[in-house]
Amino acid sequence: MKGFQKLTPVEDAQLAFLNNLNLQPTPKTTIHTTEALNRVLAEDIVAKTDLPRFDRAAVDGYVVRAEDTFGATQYKPCIFQYTKEDTLTQNQTKQVWTGNSLPKNASAVAMLEDTETAKAKLEVWTPLTPGENISKRGEDILEGQTAIQAGTRLKPHHLGLVAALGETQVKVHEKPKVAIIATGNELAELGTRLQENQIYDTNRLVLSGLCWENGAEPLDLGIVKDSVNDITERLRVAVEKADLTLTSGGTSVGGADLVPDAVNNLGKPGIIIHGIAMRPAMPTALAAIGNKPLIILPGNPVAAIIGFEVFARPLLARLQGLKQAEPRPTVKAEMTRRTATTLGRKNYLRVHVRYKNGRLCAEPISAKGSSMFSTMTRSNGYVIVPEDREGLEKGEIVQVHMFDTISE
Amino acid sequence: MKGFQKLTPVEDAQLAFLNNLNLQPTPKTTIHTTEALNRVLAEDIVAKTDLPRFDRAAVDGYVVRAEDTFGATQYKPCIFQYTKEDTLTQNQTKQVWTGNSLPKNASAVAMLEDTETAKAKLEVWTPLTPGENISKRGEDILEGQTAIQAGTRLKPHHLGLVAALGETQVKVHEKPKVAIIATGNELAELGTRLQENQIYDTNRLVLSGLCWENGAEPLDLGIVKDSVNDITERLRVAVEKADLTLTSGGTSVGGADLVPDAVNNLGKPGIIIHGIAMRPAMPTALAAIGNKPLIILPGNPVAAIIGFEVFARPLLARLQGLKQAEPRPTVKAEMTRRTATTLGRKNYLRVHVRYKNGRLCAEPISAKGSSMFSTMTRSNGYVIVPEDREGLEKGEIVQVHMFDTISE
Repeated sequence: MKGFQKLTPVEDAQLAFLNNLNLQPTPKTTIHTTEALNRVLAEDIVAKTDLPRFDRAAVDGYVVRAEDTFGATQYKPCIFQYTKEDTLTQNQTKQVWTGNSLPKNASAVAMLEDTETAKAKLEVWTPLTPGENISKRGEDILEGQTAIQAGTRLKPHHLGLVAALGETQVKVHEKPKVAIIATGNELAELGTRLQENQIYDTNRLVLSGLCWENGAEPLDLGIVKDSVNDITERLRVAVEKADLTLTSGGTSVGGADLVPDAVNNLGKPGIIIHGIAMRPAMPTALAAIGNKPLIILPGNPVAAIIGFEVFARPLLARLQGLKQAEPRPTVKAEMTRRTATTLGRKNYLRVHVRYKNGRLCAEPISAKGSSMFSTMTRSNGYVIVPEDREGLEKGEIVQVHMFDTISE
Repeated sequence: MKGFQKLTPVEDAQLAFLNNLNLQPTPKTTIHTTEALNRVLAEDIVAKTDLPRFDRAAVDGYVVRAEDTFGATQYKPCIFQYTKEDTLTQNQTKQVWTGNSLPKNASAVAMLEDTETAKAKLEVWTPLTPGENISKRGEDILEGQTAIQAGTRLKPHHLGLVAALGETQVKVHEKPKVAIIATGNELAELGTRLQENQIYDTNRLVLSGLCWENGAEPLDLGIVKDSVNDITERLRVAVEKADLTLTSGGTSVGGADLVPDAVNNLGKPGIIIHGIAMRPAMPTALAAIGNKPLIILPGNPVAAIIGFEVFARPLLARLQGLKQAEPRPTVKAEMTRRTATTLGRKNYLRVHVRYKNGRLCAEPISAKGSSMFSTMTRSNGYVIVPEDREGLEKGEIVQVHMFDTISE
């Protein structure tokens, strides 16, 4: 029977994993700007035009030559004639609205509230400096400037800028494909009738959701029975089709490490790390076939989620061309009670953060087994408790990594 | 020419808007559990089964009758016979793996490391209490308990729980449909050739992205010229098809409030609020035709984004059956320099939050006009500066609402 002779610290495992992979971002692909929400930009977008494209009014008002307003006061306004021409001469004005282009010679815009129309003429009450209330061409971005850097995940406001620059297409990295396999004789497909001692597989659904959330495209490769041969064959398909393979279960079943053995059957380097000094997800294994990474997650749902968080998220980020996993929002919160953790392991303690008398409090959500879904659905974040701690004290201020929202 | 005689405070505007609408969540619809990621649950999910469904091993090891281990020590282990039967009798044992169901009479599991096999028999070195290392049936959730409450946005771990309970379908609220219309003679469609003084419309793309991010389905109803009649006709389509209508531009063009006038043409109650004590997005108008809400956003891209944040997000949340807009993550950060804001308005100040010597700092990203895309793309959050402040001080600790991630 195999046990874990030695558990590898989380950071060492992450490093060994990356060092064994010559991980390249997925290929670049060109897509329509309108389809690019949440994709990661593969090449800098360099402005082919100034933004704004022309000088324009920054407010609603009257465009003037600034020098014609010098000395204006409320008691002695400067008087302007309306014109329809495209060029202003001395003491001529024209009404403009925010965003309008400007006639020739215009050098400032008088705001509505600083003017009054009297006897079909315009009175301007305050002196304007040249450029006042005008958005100058190129003020936002100059032609040739990098508007958005490669490696940026495109949010709605980025798409707005891309469109403002007239770019109908963008180069992004392909969505990484993630093969997902669940192993276990006890697993039944949702929608089928349970046999005695069977349970529904939940990990493929959970891991698929986590993939979508992280910009990747899950490939569901189904459930495989606890057989090294069957697992090997399914893994062969996975490694061929996907950029990353995730399995759940079979890390130590019936005395044999089924999935790790199957991985080692398949090719080199095979299993890189097996057994990690963390809790939950200790039996996680990190592997590669050629340059294709595999993460062998435990069957326990909560352990699988934490294993994904710690090992798959950073990998998916790099596969998409991001420098690192996008950090989860964190909050500082006060522990509501003492909680024991396991010495020598990095503990990912689920907590429920909420406001209590205006202060953020973190209630530990503990349960005996890491198989407890309620520890995930009742929590909205986790605290990383380092290896040299045996627990957290009541009242201790902790940093919580949030994976769900905080209700008021 | 219309000005804003009186600006309505943000909270008053939000309240007046909601009070004029008898806002109901969108209809319930039944969808497959596998399609339910990020949808909002419309009815409680009540467990039709215990979870776990049966007593099972919480660790890898040997299942025993706890009383047979009483008194065991490393020097005087208790000795067990292996059996293949489904019922344990005195001093019988059977190997089990985490998640396995248990034979009859089994009341504890000895962990691998507390045992040794000697002469085809099992030695157990430590006494076990009844229930030790066993996940009891119903320990996670009991039949009849509410597993997930209505009004929950279903994240991957929620879907896992739904699947564990064997539920193949869930009742969720329909995605709210949001009609989006841009108005303005100066606007050109992305992909077309710009005429002189034209700019590309960006707001439909930005607002569509914001709708997707908030669980809604955008309906792009295109660009409409600055004509009250044309706008009225397009709005008629929008109000008929969508749960919420967003327009950008035309709040005060050429001296006329084109979109507000069009809304008032269309029906009652029409414009509820026009002109809000905020910056940017001051010219925003809130309206309704019958019970269908409309938000008339300014044409300036940044103003449109902030207007969406303040007025559309809370509405979309309620339309989906959430109690309130999901709060953005917030961080406390130190202002890197003094920044002026407008007295009497609630200012939504864009800032870029980053770590500086291990502390979170907020760099204000300011620009003259709210049309500057770079104030959005260079920032990752905003600070709400109240109406009675004229600015923020250097070194002041502010609460930042994050809309993008913080790079280390």
